[in-house]
Amino acid sequence: MRDGHIERLIQLLARLPGLGPRSARRAALHLVKRRDTLLEPLARALNAVADAVRPCSTCGNLDAVDPCGVCVDGRRDPSRICVVEEVADLWALERAGVFRGRYQVLGGTLSALDGIGPEDLNIASLIARARKPEVREIILALNATVDGQTTTHYIHDCLAACDVDVSQLAHGVPVGGELDYLDDGTIGAALKSRRRM
Amino acid sequence: MRDGHIERLIQLLARLPGLGPRSARRAALHLVKRRDTLLEPLARALNAVADAVRPCSTCGNLDAVDPCGVCVDGRRDPSRICVVEEVADLWALERAGVFRGRYQVLGGTLSALDGIGPEDLNIASLIARARKPEVREIILALNATVDGQTTTHYIHDCLAACDVDVSQLAHGVPVGGELDYLDDGTIGAALKSRRRM
Repeated sequence: MRDGHIERLIQLLARLPGLGPRSARRAALHLVKRRDTLLEPLARALNAVADAVRPCSTCGNLDAVDPCGVCVDGRRDPSRICVVEEVADLWALERAGVFRGRYQVLGGTLSALDGIGPEDLNIASLIARARKPEVREIILALNATVDGQTTTHYIHDCLAACDVDVSQLAHGVPVGGELDYLDDGTIGAALKSRRRM
Repeated sequence: MRDGHIERLIQLLARLPGLGPRSARRAALHLVKRRDTLLEPLARALNAVADAVRPCSTCGNLDAVDPCGVCVDGRRDPSRICVVEEVADLWALERAGVFRGRYQVLGGTLSALDGIGPEDLNIASLIARARKPEVREIILALNATVDGQTTTHYIHDCLAACDVDVSQLAHGVPVGGELDYLDDGTIGAALKSRRRM
């Protein structure tokens, strides 16, 4: 006995990550109860994003301008490019505030299972950027998953012909982490990469 | 370094129940990646709901027509009114498909803590409906919480002067429930309301 408009809204909300059918129903009612303060602002925000936000043609970041704010920021070091899988990873690095160079968003990882090959990722444009004389270092910051590490090694091979340093993020004990809760692979990597004090 | 449009979308998504800041970021990226299949349809669905859906002036249900589909459905029994806290509870009863009468949505429960009194709920209109000659039974289907039961007893008192039967949902062991996992209050209620076989 639910109205068709609400039914359609619930179906679309249920397709968001983190929301199932039940929480989509709760969210829809939450929205209808807050028509002026949440429902209509959310509709406007979605339209604004649909109209304005595009991937940066240089690095793949999302922004309302192209090239994106990171690519045109003169205070950032153009000699270092940090390669990430997704825009969410770029955001995570920016939140940490530890990197002041440029980015390259691959748009995923190589995956034989899902049929994703090098031509589906922004690898060719990365190699083109790596050939530019101002670029000195490519930092591979892909996830420490099987697919992420496969892609890391593939890109490392691709960049062999370019005159750049290639590095990847360190593996080890997370800050605040307890050995008892860590997997064997992480403990092994942390031991192998131990630093003299 | 996030674009303002996306930042605004994330802030609004994070206000939905079930989504925190991290899942709102994931949802926003999920939407941007699916511009044609999810982002724009969701914006249209929100606008359609904002334009069309209103509370029913009779029972408080949400629908694009007023009175709502339940209130005008001639196949439903007009002699029974089921009183629920929220539209979500009405939906739950409709999903169960066990009730073919009309509804009254209170819009919440009495709550001294939150300063919600009888005048904030659709109680006056319930009493007016209960006085109509065709109405024979009021079924109080409020949640089995402290506030829900307080409200149940308050409405029961209000309806004393009306010539209607007043009932409430049974308390007991949920179907499929195991005694070992139930609280003492539920076991006590189930024992007290035991049925001769």
